[in-house]
Amino acid sequence: MTTTNKAKGVYAPVVTPFLKNLEPDTAELIRQCEWLLTQDVGLAIFGTNSEANSLSVREKIDLMDALVAAGIAPDRMLPGTGCCALSDTVELTRHAVRLGAIGVLMLPPFFYKGVSDDGIFASYAETIERVGDAGLRIYLYHIPQVSQVPISLAVIERLLKAYPTTIAGIKDSSGNWENTRALIEGFGPQGFDVFCGSERFLLATLRAGGVGSITATANVHPGPIAQLYRTWERPGADERQGVLDAVRSAFEQFPMIPALKATIAHHAQKRDWRIVRPPLTALDHENAQALSAALAKLEFSMPGL
Amino acid sequence: MTTTNKAKGVYAPVVTPFLKNLEPDTAELIRQCEWLLTQDVGLAIFGTNSEANSLSVREKIDLMDALVAAGIAPDRMLPGTGCCALSDTVELTRHAVRLGAIGVLMLPPFFYKGVSDDGIFASYAETIERVGDAGLRIYLYHIPQVSQVPISLAVIERLLKAYPTTIAGIKDSSGNWENTRALIEGFGPQGFDVFCGSERFLLATLRAGGVGSITATANVHPGPIAQLYRTWERPGADERQGVLDAVRSAFEQFPMIPALKATIAHHAQKRDWRIVRPPLTALDHENAQALSAALAKLEFSMPGL
Repeated sequence: MTTTNKAKGVYAPVVTPFLKNLEPDTAELIRQCEWLLTQDVGLAIFGTNSEANSLSVREKIDLMDALVAAGIAPDRMLPGTGCCALSDTVELTRHAVRLGAIGVLMLPPFFYKGVSDDGIFASYAETIERVGDAGLRIYLYHIPQVSQVPISLAVIERLLKAYPTTIAGIKDSSGNWENTRALIEGFGPQGFDVFCGSERFLLATLRAGGVGSITATANVHPGPIAQLYRTWERPGADERQGVLDAVRSAFEQFPMIPALKATIAHHAQKRDWRIVRPPLTALDHENAQALSAALAKLEFSMPGL
Repeated sequence: MTTTNKAKGVYAPVVTPFLKNLEPDTAELIRQCEWLLTQDVGLAIFGTNSEANSLSVREKIDLMDALVAAGIAPDRMLPGTGCCALSDTVELTRHAVRLGAIGVLMLPPFFYKGVSDDGIFASYAETIERVGDAGLRIYLYHIPQVSQVPISLAVIERLLKAYPTTIAGIKDSSGNWENTRALIEGFGPQGFDVFCGSERFLLATLRAGGVGSITATANVHPGPIAQLYRTWERPGADERQGVLDAVRSAFEQFPMIPALKATIAHHAQKRDWRIVRPPLTALDHENAQALSAALAKLEFSMPGL
């Protein structure tokens, strides 16, 4: 990847390993991040697939510090920092910026539903003003089917007008390609970088002018996804996209986070990788076997894990 | 109220006052709690109407400590302690129990949607095991229209079987009377105490065998609501319920939290009471005037505020 001060390419919302007592397994997270980096995939730690909202702010700060202390390059990290409480979002964001993260991925506050565009705008604006760091780069995180709080095009337009440098882009996890395209066409020319939230849309996103994908399955299938990003303008890109889609489809038959963890557990031969924090539940044996079988048919592997 | 180790009667999810810099106004919260207690209303601090999820765990702990330090009786406090992160819920709950709160009101983790009953059960069970205090009394908080994570009758049955003493009751804010009645009839005989989430159902709840109401409007109309609780078996109860309903209806024409705060601001002559944290927005002048006018017609007042 070229040196730049903006995030590009493929990022994994890194799944968070837990010990049997449900504490984060810091050493295993470091190993997983190191492996992802060898696959040319960046570290969107603390995303939805990281069970980020099942971790306290303190736990997230400690994990970020541990990753950096272990030698993980902070500019390969794009931590999720959007919480319900303004004070939490500010603390986590400030810490990420100080560590040198290339940006942060920021959910809107997600407890109250039906909030106004004014309220969403104010949430981001207050955060930006309080963090007060010219180096802050915010990627908005649009995942309405989970957060139940969409980020409208009108809010993005206002934010870009008020904070053109800080508002760096978006992860669109809506699964609605028309929305992704509207974001790229409407705001791309202003330097607003659009990531799709599933590699299913990677080729379409890059062809339309987007910059990459932040995607669950990059946790388990990083190499081929990153390869399509690097080679999308070369012959055979549609076929390579087809291979990615087949693997994605296999995972989508199961609850995503438990399925990702079961797959890592299987390929790393580390049973504890299956552990999730409540309210999630681990994939049961029968479903784990079915997923393994489906992946085996696709000659799926996790080289170097 | 009779001395008991269980919560009964009317509680206000106490609205949280903020300073202009959006920090909690501790002194004003203490004053507000003191006033509510004079009206015979208990303190369900850190509820939905308290903007609890817009506060960090640290902010909530500091506010609880300040209330107790100011002489507020901890056994009149029923703090909301349910967060998305197990670690946060445990920390806040443990603190509330140690301070001597009569119980805690606990949302299920609310970021992930469509989670299983097993996952919800595990969230409460892990919290109970980790807090590890025989004095813990949990009131489940069912508010599916906001949390988007309902608490099913099946989960309650499992929890009551596993933790019959700890699972003390529920606040049903669904607004669905059939659900409230099913809770009272199904679990009341086991000592499971049901609070309705709106005083609109107070008389019906008490007649059916429920124990009271934890309700937004108790922030502004505490005396008459508490009076109906004390006198529901006396003549004229339906008329007294009718008066409560009329005031409730006036508030329901507006976004509830900003409307409560605008009303306190107006009656206490303290303009800053209008302040909310993002993503909420304060009631604008026009709506505040319309609400005041509607309340004036009902001869609404806040004596002693």
